[in-house]
Amino acid sequence: MIIEKFPEDIVREGDYVLLVGASEKLRLIVRVEKGKVVSTIRGNVRLDDIIGKELGSKVRTSLGEELTITRPSIEEFMLEKYDRPTQVIYLKDAAYIILKAEIGPGCTVVEAGSGSGFMTTFLALHVQPNGKVISYDVRREFQEVAMRNVKMLGLDKFVEFKIRDVIKEGFDLPDKSVDAVILDMAKPWEVLSEAYRVLKHGRYLVLYLPSILQVDKVLREYRKHGFADPEVVEVLVRKWKPVSEELRPDTWMIAHTGFLVFLRKP
Amino acid sequence: MIIEKFPEDIVREGDYVLLVGASEKLRLIVRVEKGKVVSTIRGNVRLDDIIGKELGSKVRTSLGEELTITRPSIEEFMLEKYDRPTQVIYLKDAAYIILKAEIGPGCTVVEAGSGSGFMTTFLALHVQPNGKVISYDVRREFQEVAMRNVKMLGLDKFVEFKIRDVIKEGFDLPDKSVDAVILDMAKPWEVLSEAYRVLKHGRYLVLYLPSILQVDKVLREYRKHGFADPEVVEVLVRKWKPVSEELRPDTWMIAHTGFLVFLRKP
Amino acid sequence: MIIEKFPEDIVREGDYVLLVGASEKLRLIVRVEKGKVVSTIRGNVRLDDIIGKELGSKVRTSLGEELTITRPSIEEFMLEKYDRPTQVIYLKDAAYIILKAEIGPGCTVVEAGSGSGFMTTFLALHVQPNGKVISYDVRREFQEVAMRNVKMLGLDKFVEFKIRDVIKEGFDLPDKSVDAVILDMAKPWEVLSEAYRVLKHGRYLVLYLPSILQVDKVLREYRKHGFADPEVVEVLVRKWKPVSEELRPDTWMIAHTGFLVFLRKP
Amino acid sequence: MIIEKFPEDIVREGDYVLLVGASEKLRLIVRVEKGKVVSTIRGNVRLDDIIGKELGSKVRTSLGEELTITRPSIEEFMLEKYDRPTQVIYLKDAAYIILKAEIGPGCTVVEAGSGSGFMTTFLALHVQPNGKVISYDVRREFQEVAMRNVKMLGLDKFVEFKIRDVIKEGFDLPDKSVDAVILDMAKPWEVLSEAYRVLKHGRYLVLYLPSILQVDKVLREYRKHGFADPEVVEVLVRKWKPVSEELRPDTWMIAHTGFLVFLRKP
Repeated sequence: MIIEKFPEDIVREGDYVLLVGASEKLRLIVRVEKGKVVSTIRGNVRLDDIIGKELGSKVRTSLGEELTITRPSIEEFMLEKYDRPTQVIYLKDAAYIILKAEIGPGCTVVEAGSGSGFMTTFLALHVQPNGKVISYDVRREFQEVAMRNVKMLGLDKFVEFKIRDVIKEGFDLPDKSVDAVILDMAKPWEVLSEAYRVLKHGRYLVLYLPSILQVDKVLREYRKHGFADPEVVEVLVRKWKPVSEELRPDTWMIAHTGFLVFLRKP
Repeated sequence: MIIEKFPEDIVREGDYVLLVGASEKLRLIVRVEKGKVVSTIRGNVRLDDIIGKELGSKVRTSLGEELTITRPSIEEFMLEKYDRPTQVIYLKDAAYIILKAEIGPGCTVVEAGSGSGFMTTFLALHVQPNGKVISYDVRREFQEVAMRNVKMLGLDKFVEFKIRDVIKEGFDLPDKSVDAVILDMAKPWEVLSEAYRVLKHGRYLVLYLPSILQVDKVLREYRKHGFADPEVVEVLVRKWKPVSEELRPDTWMIAHTGFLVFLRKP
Repeated sequence: MIIEKFPEDIVREGDYVLLVGASEKLRLIVRVEKGKVVSTIRGNVRLDDIIGKELGSKVRTSLGEELTITRPSIEEFMLEKYDRPTQVIYLKDAAYIILKAEIGPGCTVVEAGSGSGFMTTFLALHVQPNGKVISYDVRREFQEVAMRNVKMLGLDKFVEFKIRDVIKEGFDLPDKSVDAVILDMAKPWEVLSEAYRVLKHGRYLVLYLPSILQVDKVLREYRKHGFADPEVVEVLVRKWKPVSEELRPDTWMIAHTGFLVFLRKP
Repeated sequence: MIIEKFPEDIVREGDYVLLVGASEKLRLIVRVEKGKVVSTIRGNVRLDDIIGKELGSKVRTSLGEELTITRPSIEEFMLEKYDRPTQVIYLKDAAYIILKAEIGPGCTVVEAGSGSGFMTTFLALHVQPNGKVISYDVRREFQEVAMRNVKMLGLDKFVEFKIRDVIKEGFDLPDKSVDAVILDMAKPWEVLSEAYRVLKHGRYLVLYLPSILQVDKVLREYRKHGFADPEVVEVLVRKWKPVSEELRPDTWMIAHTGFLVFLRKP
């Protein structure tokens, strides 16, 4: 999976790198720009010293702290660098959606709305190099955030952002042209017919719904629009404390983000 | 995501299709072969009648039952058609592994062992069209099943299967050549050094471990081999009964498959 | 907690005892009756040989198998000996209800309906020796099963069973006379006013509801009837395989029985 | 269940009451003492005005806010009034322990250690009026907190607190004299023999263990000491947002407190 703005081996100008101190407490993601200096709690780092270095090599701060230069993870990048004016779809849900709805290289995927671009990012990563994401939102100010976010990673070339009220105007797409539709909006039942129209046969509509009454509403509507094989799931990830002597689940966990409803065009 | 053996729109000879009756109880996946007839509980279907048809169209059985011709899902295909001589990695875990370990188009991924080819399939689907999976197993009889399984979907062109005892012989791969390593084997701690060697910096080693004492063993070993950022998680999917009047979680759920441990090469 | 029909130390005629073979596969609960013989897969046991024995001592079958004589657990007794014409409330939910709703020795507790007497049993055990359970049901045939079940353990002296349609007729109890009300019925919202009337101040009404739309209905109604402090919970018990070398959660678990709603009279 | 220091109907001097404002934001538990005045964010309350009042009636603050006088719940009382120098056992775990281990009126129960007295409180409430709790701790300073806590509710008459190192000195109790033993200590495997000795046949030893390696240790030891029927469980309570229009699970939940291990003396 190519992320244009992450180095594969040698750090280039413009790349994002992750710098990690010996204690693992000191971690920061920086964009490598010529002539720039970044300050850390353990001294300054001249970014010129990083350009051309191999991943895994070290750089020293002005106070002598040795930092390892490495590749950020996409998840930590998004959580640290993306603006989040809306609720976002997290990796655990994005993962289940992408595999269950069979979204992969070459797919054409519709999402509404764009939100903060988290789901858009995951989709773009997985439909590249020859697929595309068509991301609708009715609220220009949010979509601009999503665009800015997605652009940071160089993924904007796989996304068409469109300002459009899909409830009123539908999708501006031909029949049976789309491999998956993902709806993260308040009243997705208003778009069921349009989703059906643009989907290929055997393919999935996915709804991301925070409240169970929204799920109920969808379950009462989906048949009218031709969908079949409903599945309602919650994806829960339980993290453990990764220390041998104290091995146990974390005290707190995220117990709810959204319900996922999968519907299929027969 | 192209699955060569599934039709996109028009059914071709050699494709797998899903036939669904009105009641949704009658469902079967068939390989469309010229001159062949398949029998169902509601009469026979001549497969010649299906070739050249559009997905979404109907075919009639000899007893007059109308079946919709559609595309199977990968998951139902695997569960119905794959041989399973070993425990397998299910979609919920494969999904989290693939997104968390940043496995996507173009990636080179190592897995050991091949098992029944479930994980291999998910990996192959997501690294295509220009990536590859290198799948090791020491047990020839299992790997042959995995190969046969993966071939059914035409995904074998993205997989190199190798019979090799990776504990004794390591991976036959250059240093820093691999985007992710996935170990589903009894004693993965024996391969930590080799996994470290072949991984690119910033990339993930993933261990799939049924028992918690295996997790403990890995947590006591990983640092010696240079890994950092351990994460231990369980992925739980809770299904709901998808019927409005009776909306509730299913009575039973799968509460455990394996623990996932993620380690990162800094 | 005295269970009249279980021995505390010396086995008396009329007691229920648990007989356990060496392999732990051979387990059975028997009522000790004079002159009676019970047959097991490993030979017959003369119950006369058990009377007067201490718990923990052994008895031999006609085939020479040694069985340990011990006290059954209430849970295994109920699961083995109680008739179950209805869905029942299991220990995990009963436990949370009893502690959360502060049901203990001396309490007067109302339940509707009686069901198969599982909840009645747990309540009776915990309100003894000076409390009581008033158990309503409109269906005589079920209540007779509940009565028969509860009587086996000698707990009927702590329970008043009443055939009554509480939706139409209410509870035949004075105002503010009850420490807790537990409703396990299809339309509990029809009884909210009556539950409020009979409850003491600061005390709990508990609703056991299989479906989430029932929960929603209650949440839309409770305020009108004077209740406050709503709590909606699910109690999940995850069992582990209790074997050191294979320590891991069970593959399957019960993921849903009912939602518990707690309401309080301020 | 009688809690001596909570009013049943009429408020007496010395009782604890819960005062609740119209908005439900204003909530406080106060001990009703003659001549005393408590201040709230909405003005002062003269406690003399409360004595002799019925639960459910109102009292006015100096600023005219009307407060309902009601009975506190035990859980909110403990969370607000108990000192907590140690980790505590919460209601969800206490509930499952009490019902599973068949702890009820009249039982003699051993616990080690006393901790902050949370478990002691739940046990005392449920063994009254004729049972007792024997609570051991080696650390005098903690046990004094537990004693002070339990005394607030008037439950000390059902508890014998003992300073004693049970690992070295065992329990000072006769053989087969105890209905249940609960161990909440770092190395409970050091006390297995003693627990076995004092338990009645057919009865339960319960271990509360934060870490899974402690569970493993117990599973490797229990057979040597004569125990059987091991059960390892986690009790999870998932709360929902109790609002109709937004009905959904809470975003965060407590995902781990301790593992519960049940062992039985055959």
